[in-house]
Amino acid sequence: MNIALIGLGNMGLGIGHNLLGAGFTLTVFNRTQGKAQPLLDKGARWAASPREAAAGAQLVLTMVADDNALLAVCEGADGLLEGFEQGAIHASMSTVSNALVERLAPLHQQHGAVLLGTPVFGRPDAAAAGKLFIVAAGPAGALERARPALEAVSQKLFVVGEQPQQAALVKLIGNFLLTCVIEGLGEATALAAKGGIEPKALLEVLTGSIFNAPVYHTYGKLIVEQQFEPAGFTVPLAAKDNRLVLQAAEALHVPLPFASIVRDRFIRAQAQGKGEQDLSSISALAREDAGVKR
Amino acid sequence: MNIALIGLGNMGLGIGHNLLGAGFTLTVFNRTQGKAQPLLDKGARWAASPREAAAGAQLVLTMVADDNALLAVCEGADGLLEGFEQGAIHASMSTVSNALVERLAPLHQQHGAVLLGTPVFGRPDAAAAGKLFIVAAGPAGALERARPALEAVSQKLFVVGEQPQQAALVKLIGNFLLTCVIEGLGEATALAAKGGIEPKALLEVLTGSIFNAPVYHTYGKLIVEQQFEPAGFTVPLAAKDNRLVLQAAEALHVPLPFASIVRDRFIRAQAQGKGEQDLSSISALAREDAGVKR
Amino acid sequence: MNIALIGLGNMGLGIGHNLLGAGFTLTVFNRTQGKAQPLLDKGARWAASPREAAAGAQLVLTMVADDNALLAVCEGADGLLEGFEQGAIHASMSTVSNALVERLAPLHQQHGAVLLGTPVFGRPDAAAAGKLFIVAAGPAGALERARPALEAVSQKLFVVGEQPQQAALVKLIGNFLLTCVIEGLGEATALAAKGGIEPKALLEVLTGSIFNAPVYHTYGKLIVEQQFEPAGFTVPLAAKDNRLVLQAAEALHVPLPFASIVRDRFIRAQAQGKGEQDLSSISALAREDAGVKR
Amino acid sequence: MNIALIGLGNMGLGIGHNLLGAGFTLTVFNRTQGKAQPLLDKGARWAASPREAAAGAQLVLTMVADDNALLAVCEGADGLLEGFEQGAIHASMSTVSNALVERLAPLHQQHGAVLLGTPVFGRPDAAAAGKLFIVAAGPAGALERARPALEAVSQKLFVVGEQPQQAALVKLIGNFLLTCVIEGLGEATALAAKGGIEPKALLEVLTGSIFNAPVYHTYGKLIVEQQFEPAGFTVPLAAKDNRLVLQAAEALHVPLPFASIVRDRFIRAQAQGKGEQDLSSISALAREDAGVKR
Repeated sequence: MNIALIGLGNMGLGIGHNLLGAGFTLTVFNRTQGKAQPLLDKGARWAASPREAAAGAQLVLTMVADDNALLAVCEGADGLLEGFEQGAIHASMSTVSNALVERLAPLHQQHGAVLLGTPVFGRPDAAAAGKLFIVAAGPAGALERARPALEAVSQKLFVVGEQPQQAALVKLIGNFLLTCVIEGLGEATALAAKGGIEPKALLEVLTGSIFNAPVYHTYGKLIVEQQFEPAGFTVPLAAKDNRLVLQAAEALHVPLPFASIVRDRFIRAQAQGKGEQDLSSISALAREDAGVKR
Repeated sequence: MNIALIGLGNMGLGIGHNLLGAGFTLTVFNRTQGKAQPLLDKGARWAASPREAAAGAQLVLTMVADDNALLAVCEGADGLLEGFEQGAIHASMSTVSNALVERLAPLHQQHGAVLLGTPVFGRPDAAAAGKLFIVAAGPAGALERARPALEAVSQKLFVVGEQPQQAALVKLIGNFLLTCVIEGLGEATALAAKGGIEPKALLEVLTGSIFNAPVYHTYGKLIVEQQFEPAGFTVPLAAKDNRLVLQAAEALHVPLPFASIVRDRFIRAQAQGKGEQDLSSISALAREDAGVKR
Repeated sequence: MNIALIGLGNMGLGIGHNLLGAGFTLTVFNRTQGKAQPLLDKGARWAASPREAAAGAQLVLTMVADDNALLAVCEGADGLLEGFEQGAIHASMSTVSNALVERLAPLHQQHGAVLLGTPVFGRPDAAAAGKLFIVAAGPAGALERARPALEAVSQKLFVVGEQPQQAALVKLIGNFLLTCVIEGLGEATALAAKGGIEPKALLEVLTGSIFNAPVYHTYGKLIVEQQFEPAGFTVPLAAKDNRLVLQAAEALHVPLPFASIVRDRFIRAQAQGKGEQDLSSISALAREDAGVKR
Repeated sequence: MNIALIGLGNMGLGIGHNLLGAGFTLTVFNRTQGKAQPLLDKGARWAASPREAAAGAQLVLTMVADDNALLAVCEGADGLLEGFEQGAIHASMSTVSNALVERLAPLHQQHGAVLLGTPVFGRPDAAAAGKLFIVAAGPAGALERARPALEAVSQKLFVVGEQPQQAALVKLIGNFLLTCVIEGLGEATALAAKGGIEPKALLEVLTGSIFNAPVYHTYGKLIVEQQFEPAGFTVPLAAKDNRLVLQAAEALHVPLPFASIVRDRFIRAQAQGKGEQDLSSISALAREDAGVKR
């Protein structure tokens, strides 16, 4: 199977390595060519544009920064839409708005291609290890054809519906719940600290009992140690995802009171000039409100 | 070691069985004697009052409904305080306010006893199986003396501080975070449903990836299946714990915006006459707000 | 008509002067006698206790700090309840919980007296000028008998029901709405400032158009000028009233999301050590969140 | 002075009548010509496009529905920008985003015109009576030249800054505070009703004392009488303004917790199919939450 991969940031690179490792023929494109070298060294072919990358590929994977980047990759004279082979599948792995995916799906159809929503949970280290979680949605046939490649880069693939935008929405919901965990832990550790309890001791209780999930381990550690730099995922990027979930919810007429509270945290963190910090740094605001020293 | 156990509800009974099974000599008291029969049948001794139960016991465990019940068990002519042996240890396993524990600790000292805070995480089935999680705080020596008995009824014991009220506060914080999970899942499933995604499919993604913790499995299932009766823990009881954590936070000057949102959910559920439902039923309010049908 | 007046703080003193000015025979009591001197100089009689003050009075007015103070004035061997003449009327002008008023009403009846709820809107200068607004509730007959005295100290008297606790609740609701105005103006001025608009110019638009009410003039000025000391009404006192309205609402199963947000502001202000500032100082927190300089 | 008026809805019509009444020469344009008839009958001239309307006008007033409508009026071959006389002034009276005004200002300059922000407070009856409140911002010279016309249609004109977008922002802030009053009154009347107090009696206390402002009279009446149709201003329109103020605040990094709560009310009202109701109908949600009957 010939695969094209567009977007070679930390996530895309890991994905590319795993695809090559699994024996797929890989063509790659990235806005800055330099990033591609490690993959070219292992046998990937360089394409001068998304359009060129799509030529001859049965499957195109994209892993780009946001809605604008995905649009730029798809549209225009050099875009994917102009390059797709008949029957090609585009698996969009980026975290983007469900509205954009919903808008792109019929455009793909008009160009003889099929769009899948296949966003992922996992940080760059998981991408490198082929241990991503993939949330997938789209036409069943296309999904099955893409499955071997998707499984080569993930530890688990969840199918949540037949419309690609459903996967986009599930991804936004997952990110929303992640921010709820962070805010909850922020408030919890602030209260613990004021009550004379070591936040670390609180976290051990939580992760040692009914809150024993990766999200509490990973973010709980950052919060307890107040280690917000270097950022795994910065406040402005997390604020963007928060905006996307609130917009999706507004369009579907769903109030999300927890998301609004988190929104105010992100805004406040940015007003304080903490744009370079990890999203877990909003937990410090609950401590600030409570007058916790240190 | 002679142990007295006060409070034989669903939780207390399970604890009693495990203490007897571990070979401890057990004296029991309960407001209504009938509940005690299964333990008496297995060799426990009946006491006519908390005071009488305390006589001769090196360790007294209490597992009662709330602050008022704990106060009633401690104070008065028939109360524990009048019955403690010199050097006796009282391990309070109930979920009560940290303020009450802080107030009771010096009273215990005045009566020659030591108060430990040893509240638990776990439902009645965990108590029956000896699989509770115990959060413990208090003077280290007393805690070590009580440890064998506490370990006999739990799968894990966490020590969080030397003041018994610290364990009470950690327990309230844990319950608070649990309600945050419920509210978060309520909002998440409402959005999923409006977006055409089966809540069950969403939950599988969450619990199959980074939210793989008992609290998401247990409550996620209740929420997705909207199975709110029979209640494991009713809305008014959960509302009481919410009130306790908000009071603790207010006294320590800690804003808890998430807890306030949950508070409004509990109040609204009660205004709708849902007092008999499980606390997870507040998740239905997010769906109601979003106009989700069914 | 013989009137007794209990509580000679800034509010009580103004009320006393106006009663004397209107020709009523006045007996006064205060915890510290010194405060009474200005009224004694103008002809008031001193009583050694609430009970003694009530003797011979057809109408007793109380204006004390809070629930505890009102309870202390009513109960005990020296309390009002022991001193009431048959048919005496007690008009409670303090801001207290509706729950306390509801509890005190039947106790008054048992002692042959009638309790009216008659809390007031207005600061000490309004009390001095006889320009208070009185919210009154209670049995109609008693209310009419008390009316001449109440009108002597107010510019307007509103009757809201036949149960004295209803007036207490209306007062709490009024104070709640006042804090909503303050929070709203806090957020509004923060946004204006970040948008390059003078908060003073914004306030002129508001109070010059559809927000032309005393509450916007009075508090808007404090907020725009950030003049929070000396306090007209301190943060902890306002926090107490916020607690009372939230408790009343919880007991009646009424969610008050705005009150919860204000609650967090008061808690945060106290965590920052701003307990001595005026309640309007919570407006500064919105500016702090937004990173407004100065 | 030759004036052009674009947009002849209920607001624009009232403005047009007052301009004619004050003796100004008036050219009008509206998307549907029929609406213009009453003004043409009184001597206004019809223009076939915004561009044509602008020809020969020293002052152009626009009063259109939203950002898109204002953009459509300004841009394109038939737009205002192509029609402006050298030195023409455009006073934008619509409620639109400050971001759009900020974007349009330099475009005006490039076409030799000056943009003023001159949004209004007041409903159609106030427009008809020439009793609007105008919030104005822009270059001082242009503002003074426009003043006679603006004063002919208003009872008061407030100048808030020299950048036209500042007036747009003040208008959004005013609308935000209006929704805070509505939500506050919704919560307040819900609590009153559950406490056995007639909401009408509560409102009389408020508007008769420190909340004696038009906004409490007007909206208080609608809320107490639960008269939400016909709508003066519908929920979706109010939701749009709420979105604009939240976007403005987000761009300036200003958290607005009250606006987020109101946002959820508007979303919920729309989820319940109440899109045709007046914005004051969100007050009914607080009553619904509290289980108020009727």
